[in-house]
Amino acid sequence: MTEIGRSRPVLEARSKVDGTADYVINHVRHRMLHAAIVRSTEPHAELAGIDADAARASPGVHSVLTGQDVAQVIKDPYYGPAFHDQPILALEKVRYVGEPVALVLADERHIAVAAAALVDVSYRGLKPVFDEVAASAEDAPLVHESLRPGAAFADLRHLAGVRGTNVALHTRLRHGDPDAAWDGGGQVFEHEYHTQQVAHVPLESHCAIAEFVGPDRLEVESGTQSPSFTRLELARLLGWRENQVRVIVPYLGGGFGAKLYMKLEALAAAAALIAGRPVRVAITMDEQFFTISRHATTTRIRSRVDDTGKFLARAVEVYWNGGAYADIGPRVTQKSGFIAAGPYRIDAVAVDSRAVYTNRTPAGAMRGFGVPQMVFAHESHADEIAAATGMDPIELRRRNLLADGDLHATGTRLESAATMEVLELLATKMRWAEEIDRGSGTVRRGRGVAIGLKAVVTPTTSAATVSLAGDGSVTVRQGTVDMGQGSSTVMAVIAGQALGVPPEQIAVLPPDTDATPYDMGTLGSRSTFHMGNAVLAAALDVKRQLMAFAAEVTGCSPADVSCSGGRVAGLTFEEIMSATHGARAGTLVGYGSYTPRTVAPDPKTGQSPAITPFWMVGGSGAEISVDVETGRITVDRIVCVADAGVALNPDAARRQVSGGVVMQLGMTLSEEMRYEDGQLTNPGLGLYKVPTALDVPPDIDVCLIQHPHPAGPYGAKGIGETGTFAVSPAVANALADATGVRIRSLPLSAEKVLRGLHVSKGRRLE
Amino acid sequence: MTEIGRSRPVLEARSKVDGTADYVINHVRHRMLHAAIVRSTEPHAELAGIDADAARASPGVHSVLTGQDVAQVIKDPYYGPAFHDQPILALEKVRYVGEPVALVLADERHIAVAAAALVDVSYRGLKPVFDEVAASAEDAPLVHESLRPGAAFADLRHLAGVRGTNVALHTRLRHGDPDAAWDGGGQVFEHEYHTQQVAHVPLESHCAIAEFVGPDRLEVESGTQSPSFTRLELARLLGWRENQVRVIVPYLGGGFGAKLYMKLEALAAAAALIAGRPVRVAITMDEQFFTISRHATTTRIRSRVDDTGKFLARAVEVYWNGGAYADIGPRVTQKSGFIAAGPYRIDAVAVDSRAVYTNRTPAGAMRGFGVPQMVFAHESHADEIAAATGMDPIELRRRNLLADGDLHATGTRLESAATMEVLELLATKMRWAEEIDRGSGTVRRGRGVAIGLKAVVTPTTSAATVSLAGDGSVTVRQGTVDMGQGSSTVMAVIAGQALGVPPEQIAVLPPDTDATPYDMGTLGSRSTFHMGNAVLAAALDVKRQLMAFAAEVTGCSPADVSCSGGRVAGLTFEEIMSATHGARAGTLVGYGSYTPRTVAPDPKTGQSPAITPFWMVGGSGAEISVDVETGRITVDRIVCVADAGVALNPDAARRQVSGGVVMQLGMTLSEEMRYEDGQLTNPGLGLYKVPTALDVPPDIDVCLIQHPHPAGPYGAKGIGETGTFAVSPAVANALADATGVRIRSLPLSAEKVLRGLHVSKGRRLE
Repeated sequence: MTEIGRSRPVLEARSKVDGTADYVINHVRHRMLHAAIVRSTEPHAELAGIDADAARASPGVHSVLTGQDVAQVIKDPYYGPAFHDQPILALEKVRYVGEPVALVLADERHIAVAAAALVDVSYRGLKPVFDEVAASAEDAPLVHESLRPGAAFADLRHLAGVRGTNVALHTRLRHGDPDAAWDGGGQVFEHEYHTQQVAHVPLESHCAIAEFVGPDRLEVESGTQSPSFTRLELARLLGWRENQVRVIVPYLGGGFGAKLYMKLEALAAAAALIAGRPVRVAITMDEQFFTISRHATTTRIRSRVDDTGKFLARAVEVYWNGGAYADIGPRVTQKSGFIAAGPYRIDAVAVDSRAVYTNRTPAGAMRGFGVPQMVFAHESHADEIAAATGMDPIELRRRNLLADGDLHATGTRLESAATMEVLELLATKMRWAEEIDRGSGTVRRGRGVAIGLKAVVTPTTSAATVSLAGDGSVTVRQGTVDMGQGSSTVMAVIAGQALGVPPEQIAVLPPDTDATPYDMGTLGSRSTFHMGNAVLAAALDVKRQLMAFAAEVTGCSPADVSCSGGRVAGLTFEEIMSATHGARAGTLVGYGSYTPRTVAPDPKTGQSPAITPFWMVGGSGAEISVDVETGRITVDRIVCVADAGVALNPDAARRQVSGGVVMQLGMTLSEEMRYEDGQLTNPGLGLYKVPTALDVPPDIDVCLIQHPHPAGPYGAKGIGETGTFAVSPAVANALADATGVRIRSLPLSAEKVLRGLHVSKGRRLE
Repeated sequence: MTEIGRSRPVLEARSKVDGTADYVINHVRHRMLHAAIVRSTEPHAELAGIDADAARASPGVHSVLTGQDVAQVIKDPYYGPAFHDQPILALEKVRYVGEPVALVLADERHIAVAAAALVDVSYRGLKPVFDEVAASAEDAPLVHESLRPGAAFADLRHLAGVRGTNVALHTRLRHGDPDAAWDGGGQVFEHEYHTQQVAHVPLESHCAIAEFVGPDRLEVESGTQSPSFTRLELARLLGWRENQVRVIVPYLGGGFGAKLYMKLEALAAAAALIAGRPVRVAITMDEQFFTISRHATTTRIRSRVDDTGKFLARAVEVYWNGGAYADIGPRVTQKSGFIAAGPYRIDAVAVDSRAVYTNRTPAGAMRGFGVPQMVFAHESHADEIAAATGMDPIELRRRNLLADGDLHATGTRLESAATMEVLELLATKMRWAEEIDRGSGTVRRGRGVAIGLKAVVTPTTSAATVSLAGDGSVTVRQGTVDMGQGSSTVMAVIAGQALGVPPEQIAVLPPDTDATPYDMGTLGSRSTFHMGNAVLAAALDVKRQLMAFAAEVTGCSPADVSCSGGRVAGLTFEEIMSATHGARAGTLVGYGSYTPRTVAPDPKTGQSPAITPFWMVGGSGAEISVDVETGRITVDRIVCVADAGVALNPDAARRQVSGGVVMQLGMTLSEEMRYEDGQLTNPGLGLYKVPTALDVPPDIDVCLIQHPHPAGPYGAKGIGETGTFAVSPAVANALADATGVRIRSLPLSAEKVLRGLHVSKGRRLE
């Protein structure tokens, strides 16, 4: 029997359909207060005063809290996963429009919302800065007076207390001798690409409920992708031990990175501490846009190319617009800096990647963790080189692409990375050798391809337990948060395969840090690989115990005991448990923990021989139609090829990839957080345009390349983000192919296309 | 450093004082319905009809459920820990006054209560039976048409379907040749003793909340002493796997056995299943009296005694008044049958112990599990023999008491049982060699002693995990329910000692069957021994892993790594975790399970060479004053000597014993559930008199004998019930000593004493 590689519905499918699935928004607690956040109306200003008298006097209002109140109960009320720079409520100054300034607590949510409108905050304006390149200038207005990296991070420690800069982190990668690599023959190409700030837009907005249960225990229920981190961070803020803080996470209605690290949890906890009652903080869809976003970027990429199209040297400078608070931005800067030069064999590479503070909504992790922005740059750049040198884009990539076993610019070799196969399958699926219909009338058709590579975040740990009850039923406790990606089902498949139990009979319970071992977080496509290995180890630990019991019960030698089909030595699990415990009783607990060995980068070169336990490879191809009268792009077909290792639940894996494709199409074509004088003009789904069902291309062809990864659980590796990598440049390259218009900034809006068409015809649009 | 044997406040002390302790009564769930139970007004009757129209029409009422409704969703809606005889709501007939007949669900509790009064139930009366001896007669009215033992119990299976009897179980113990042991010299003494039905009266009444979370998951929050059993039983009723049912248990406001096995949980679950919403079922203090009780008993005890006072043969017949449903009564009948002949070396013993159905509130487990009733009989009997033969009561016991190593009538040897030391210390503490003040005026003073023995329930399993977080903090997951006895603190002491961590820094979390391994139940003084061993094993498993890590990190040989004072190889736990995981990350999980080896009794003799993993020994002495004008007994002094193995938290152990003493004084002097025609006339604290602070004796001297038990965790064994064993006969013997009045039935009420005084003077009271 094998459970591996058979497509099956996700375990929670029925509860999602019948409405009984458990979301934190439905949780209540005895004497729970509801909250509404008063948000800054200024992008950068000193707080001059907060007049909350009218709000406090409203019937049903319990209290109004400010940053000063929080500072009374939490000594150093700043949080963040990389830097401790974000106040729970603003202190002294505000750094972006929408920053939480005060919190109204009331018996009902509508009362809190109404009272929040009565809170009068006065400001003394400061000069703001919004652009990432401008903010990096020496004379730019300072968003933060000094840097506050988290004390736990050895590699950031040198930044503590640095003053006078908005650059939170400048990471460098040096491969070969990039300074000397620009002399000699060949052509040099240099381009600058921009990506815009976009929002995650999970359909379930953030919600956190906090209650102090007893004098030394905090319970938080939250829709978070990082229960273990949230526990650690809350414990740090309170000066408590981890075992005093409990974080409970039900299903998530989407995450995409928006719910990583800590968002509302510290605010809810501080309010509960002050109020002495449970507090629920929930935000609206509009408020998501003032919570977290994806980094806008400016990327300058310069390449030296020889006559055969071979890339000889490359220099990349990236500016990441981190907004007002670092969140995980410095890590995006580092990790996506790794791959900013593209998946190519280049002897000399220099990457300079800067995390920059600005007066915008903070930017953090979002599906792809910076990779889509980098791939947009290096793959647009590749096609620009191909066009300039007259080479076929596939052929250019074929000549330069890193093959499995090659040394990547980071100093780590590609292992079990199907780069070449992804490219070739992409070419095949795109029928690249054939000419396509080029359109007629006002419609121009074109196609483009792109390919990207991603390392997984390191070093990280996942741990899990698998337990067996007296009746033989199996429960998996693991910290990967199921937010629709189907992770719980995959963990059931892994445990089920190990124990010979149908996955549908296994309970994979949602995270609760009181019961669920540590996991670094549900992010970066790491879960199937890392948590899968932990669950596998835990299941095998249970199996080992069962087999020892079975040997004892049957009198067989342990070596002769076999386990298959839910039986050990011919006995059911329940029979073994009963025989061993004298009744239907007992629990076996198996435990597994997985931390792949990696090597920290050399501080001088940024290189390491082991930067990632596995590589993700994703390629996309797009066929599009462009209406030259309106500039509107229609994506007719998307091919997405991903290297899956082994897909444990193939249909679900394909759905995840195609979901990533559609999400990335939103960023490619329509989404953009638009600011005027620091005011976000389009928060909420009424103004901010994500793809709807009608915008989904009629043909999305997801192809999984399956070679078992030697270190993956049953050969699997991560795939969650691969759909996002290469979509944007594939469409941009298709646009250039269709119209000759090269657009170097996302989104590829109809306005930009139309403007480009006019410019290419020597006309001006305005 | 040793944490063992140092008295310390219980970990939850502050939360109990400041009011933040978490009880299920304070839990709420989204859309939760409240319930009120409609109860039978008849002791024995057929259900003729239930008219709930008026109740259903009440504003705010959601629905009214009957047994028929329950039977629609639960195929075989009968539950119970030994017999599956109790319907979730009455079906066809009612068997006692107060039996749940219908359930009203409403938005608020007060609405449900008001509507419950509108439900009109009609009955066709049947002949009831109330007395346990009368009910054992062949022609007695039948409470149940046939017996329904639980299918899981091999030793009860032969009873399935047996008809025509109220005797649910008749257990026999035969030691030596009891039939032949009555011939020869010496005197034969025979007496009959009675104990009354009493109530547990935990100050927190029962409450259970049930919610179906998704189509295949049930969550129940309940104040239960048996989370694991409740999960099993709910899974059985639903036809589900154990891993589909979650039982969550916060602190209990007392239990004493009243909250063992299942009480309201199945009712709440059935209602939630029918209503499709969470349902909370909570009962009042008055309703406790219609839920569970302690068995009334009739015990006939006959002994042959030689001239030196040596007990030569003993026959005991016990009738346990189990009320309308068996609950755990058949097990009480068995286990307390083991010790019904007393802690004496008697070559020929016959015990016949019968669990009998009657039309009263069901009886189950209560602190001592039948032992206080048996000790009242055999220790009153002992003093009656001493009085008749002119021997000193201590001397008589000294001559007959089983010594450590002796063979008990059950066939099991006493091991690590300090019987002799308990008796001698009792004599010393009672200053037995000295004469006491005999009173003056209308006051007569006297003293008495008694001693009891108890085996622990077998076979049973406890399992636990101990986990270590990235910051080195320790969390214990174990299923012993803390209901005031201080079990969580004891588990922290055990884990703390094993790991070198102060117990106050360890989190011992309340049971949650999704996270907490199996435990047989918090009962029978088994927890410190069984769960203590499981927690110890789990802590040592963590320690082993830590030491292996430390060896790896430091490069030492594992043999050279030492662990003390919260450091391993000189490193803190956090340093080891960080070094191993590359960050403050990871969780170590240690697992331990403990099932002492026992041997099932021989079906013919009831004997076994291993009936218990440890023996409890408890002796009590009482000095009392009796007002001969009113008959009122005042207990001036109580001495209680218990064999503790090693007391892990001595002050708490003494508090637990003295709490048991006071509780048993209530049964001894004042408590009694009184019936008239099957109607309980004194439910609730207004009518039923438990001891108050003013009734507590001014001098309670609790002495712990401490010899480490070789199999106990750090030498500890159970002590929780020992305070209850011998109090009643000690007082009854003191009464005889003071006044010459021998009362053979509890309580020793002023009325009975006065009547006895008149009879002893040859007068009649009436």
